[in-house]
Amino acid sequence: MVQDRCLKITTVTARDIRWPTSLGAHGSDAMHTDPDYSCVYVTIATAEGPVGYGMTFTLGRGTDIVLLAVRALKRLVEGRTTASIYERFGQFWRELTSDSQLRWIGPEKGVTHLAVAAIINALWDLWGKIRNVPVWQLLAEMEPTELVSAIDFRYIEDVITPKEAIAMLEQNKATRNERIQHLLKHGYPAYTTQIGWLGYSDDTIRALCKKYLAAGFKAFKMKVGQDLESDIKRCQLIRDEIGWENQFMVDANQTWDVPTAIDWMKRLKEFKLLWIEEPTSPDDVLGHAKIAEALREYSIGVATGEMCCNRVMFKQFMQANALEFCQIDSARIGGVNEILSVYLMANKLNIKVCPHAGGVGLCEMVQHLQMWDFCSVSSTMEGRMVEFVDQQHDQFVYPAIINEKACYVTPKAPGYSTELKSDAIAHFEYPQGSEWQRMFAEGLFKPENY
Amino acid sequence: MVQDRCLKITTVTARDIRWPTSLGAHGSDAMHTDPDYSCVYVTIATAEGPVGYGMTFTLGRGTDIVLLAVRALKRLVEGRTTASIYERFGQFWRELTSDSQLRWIGPEKGVTHLAVAAIINALWDLWGKIRNVPVWQLLAEMEPTELVSAIDFRYIEDVITPKEAIAMLEQNKATRNERIQHLLKHGYPAYTTQIGWLGYSDDTIRALCKKYLAAGFKAFKMKVGQDLESDIKRCQLIRDEIGWENQFMVDANQTWDVPTAIDWMKRLKEFKLLWIEEPTSPDDVLGHAKIAEALREYSIGVATGEMCCNRVMFKQFMQANALEFCQIDSARIGGVNEILSVYLMANKLNIKVCPHAGGVGLCEMVQHLQMWDFCSVSSTMEGRMVEFVDQQHDQFVYPAIINEKACYVTPKAPGYSTELKSDAIAHFEYPQGSEWQRMFAEGLFKPENY
Repeated sequence: MVQDRCLKITTVTARDIRWPTSLGAHGSDAMHTDPDYSCVYVTIATAEGPVGYGMTFTLGRGTDIVLLAVRALKRLVEGRTTASIYERFGQFWRELTSDSQLRWIGPEKGVTHLAVAAIINALWDLWGKIRNVPVWQLLAEMEPTELVSAIDFRYIEDVITPKEAIAMLEQNKATRNERIQHLLKHGYPAYTTQIGWLGYSDDTIRALCKKYLAAGFKAFKMKVGQDLESDIKRCQLIRDEIGWENQFMVDANQTWDVPTAIDWMKRLKEFKLLWIEEPTSPDDVLGHAKIAEALREYSIGVATGEMCCNRVMFKQFMQANALEFCQIDSARIGGVNEILSVYLMANKLNIKVCPHAGGVGLCEMVQHLQMWDFCSVSSTMEGRMVEFVDQQHDQFVYPAIINEKACYVTPKAPGYSTELKSDAIAHFEYPQGSEWQRMFAEGLFKPENY
Repeated sequence: MVQDRCLKITTVTARDIRWPTSLGAHGSDAMHTDPDYSCVYVTIATAEGPVGYGMTFTLGRGTDIVLLAVRALKRLVEGRTTASIYERFGQFWRELTSDSQLRWIGPEKGVTHLAVAAIINALWDLWGKIRNVPVWQLLAEMEPTELVSAIDFRYIEDVITPKEAIAMLEQNKATRNERIQHLLKHGYPAYTTQIGWLGYSDDTIRALCKKYLAAGFKAFKMKVGQDLESDIKRCQLIRDEIGWENQFMVDANQTWDVPTAIDWMKRLKEFKLLWIEEPTSPDDVLGHAKIAEALREYSIGVATGEMCCNRVMFKQFMQANALEFCQIDSARIGGVNEILSVYLMANKLNIKVCPHAGGVGLCEMVQHLQMWDFCSVSSTMEGRMVEFVDQQHDQFVYPAIINEKACYVTPKAPGYSTELKSDAIAHFEYPQGSEWQRMFAEGLFKPENY
């Protein structure tokens, strides 16, 4: 194993950063009609200088609640050495998720688990900086035993054991460098959700289809679920624009119950849809399984995962044949460590991971994980792609970049691409940032007051 | 329908109240080794005077996080009239759980859902006071259509529809008054968990068995899961004390994975255990189903629910034959409204509800729900009982009371039995209460500081 320089963690700082995206209809869907894209931004400082940045994505209200949860967890991180964390990272992850009093208000879900994710993501950024490599490369070049020791296998050993995981990773080592070279040259395929937010007019949708086709995209996703006739019309409009050789997916953002999902999607079958995303409650494994079974004859796959709360839920979605496309989210579940276990289970059970992204920092982070999957786990890009939404990237020091073939450009900067520009913080920290103060003064928003 | 007096809700206040129960080993289990029994205590004041009290149970650290979530939800309640809530209570419940920005940090689980529960429980207390009846009676005497309109059936109509629920309740109306009379005379059977917390010595366990046998109890529960040999010894010790005619249950508090749960319980089969409670992750429906199947030949049932996060998860536990005993918790999931839907599903699928209680206020609240079940839903006490733990009751104005036959005495005071004594607040509000200030001064606890 690599012998890392050992640093002393001095402080964990959390900030509430919000962008006023609800002023446009950007990001609107059937359940989230007016999101203000936000994040809890965590900074982990060390006595020796290197700093880790991490985040979890939120939609505005409630960011302060997640921030308080990060503060409640700080005592488990401050004062630790990095060696005491990274040398038994799975064990540390369990400590962070299993505080004997805090776990009652989770466990491993909702606010507390989002807070864990923000801290854990900052620790991976820091680790990348210590080894002076981007996180995808840190993961790809790690010894299988070291990588597996970062995972808490509690509750998932009925699907995958540490031993199996090590064997899976070992098997791909020989050809790994070829894939690293491929990534550095070509990047990783993206798809766009930018064409079909619910708030957009027909003209906007048409213009965006043309724009993203010209930008090299071959896969497009549209929001559905508010009105069937309108969905049919918009599907037709998009197929007219993108043709039939490109891929087309739809996303219901949890709006339906099980029978409605099946009936509604049968009405859209003529549009040759690759997947229906989040057809019903993100907690309903058995419901998704029923939907998947009913839609199999139309070759419509079920995709879900962006709000799946932990590895135990992902395990069941996979065991029950309830999803064909696993959409892990880099800011949800308990950060990188837990997401690694989901990739390993997906590979064992032959399920494709097509990550959720967009929001704030999701593209920046998840590209690393999917590139690791290509190098070390599934070893293929076949049928896989990463969501891309063109928002908030300019707020980052090392933004996700899409090349002329609509692929994510493989990151080269050390860390997890999670550092925000200092201007972003100065302008958008809530409520004291200069942009918020301006918008309050102009009456565009009212400050939260409770 | 009853025409209620309509009140104007002026303020929603939330308090962080904690008791230093970690100083004993009271309440300790395999995952929660040092709980400080706590609650977020919600007061809903009206312009006309009546006040509703509600709560959600917590274990100490993190109570402040749930409190902040209550404050974030206040804006959806303050300024409303009670009529606008109770006349479309299911719709109001959905508004409270579906705020378009806040739902991202749930949805319907963890911190935000606990906060919803505290508010909703206070609204039921207020409603009971408006009608001048205890909540069990409010529920039992409500017209089926009115009761069903309090429930959000989103995501559960594949198991039960509003129409079926109304028919179920109508069917039991004719004989309801007999059961009300039975309840008023005899109360509702309880079982005790008081004998077997993990921190207790053998002598303490023996003494407690004798005490609760003498108090009329016929069912006893013990914590297991830290050490198999010790569990075997303690099972033997308890069977020696309580004999074989009484019921004996064990509780693992989520400590095992699926194969371990099955193996461990096979080693305990000679003790004729009624159920194994929380054998594994509270999220693992399919895992519980496997355990239930494996233990069926030993007549050991699977019980779970105290940390089940919402009706969608309960639905699946029932659909998958993953539990025999459904342990709803009155402070978890989204309060009374959502719990009603779980009782209705359980009745349709022939599953016994044996509620979780203990903690702070759980006994006080859940007795109402189980008594309603007896009056209006299952219409039987066969194979059913409510947990009882003898802690914190003296902090309540209308405490849960156990009679000489170990039955909960049917509450008569209007409301949901949720009002704390003013002394309880003065002493134990965190961190300013007089007892906390004393304990900080004496060095028994350090104040949280972040």
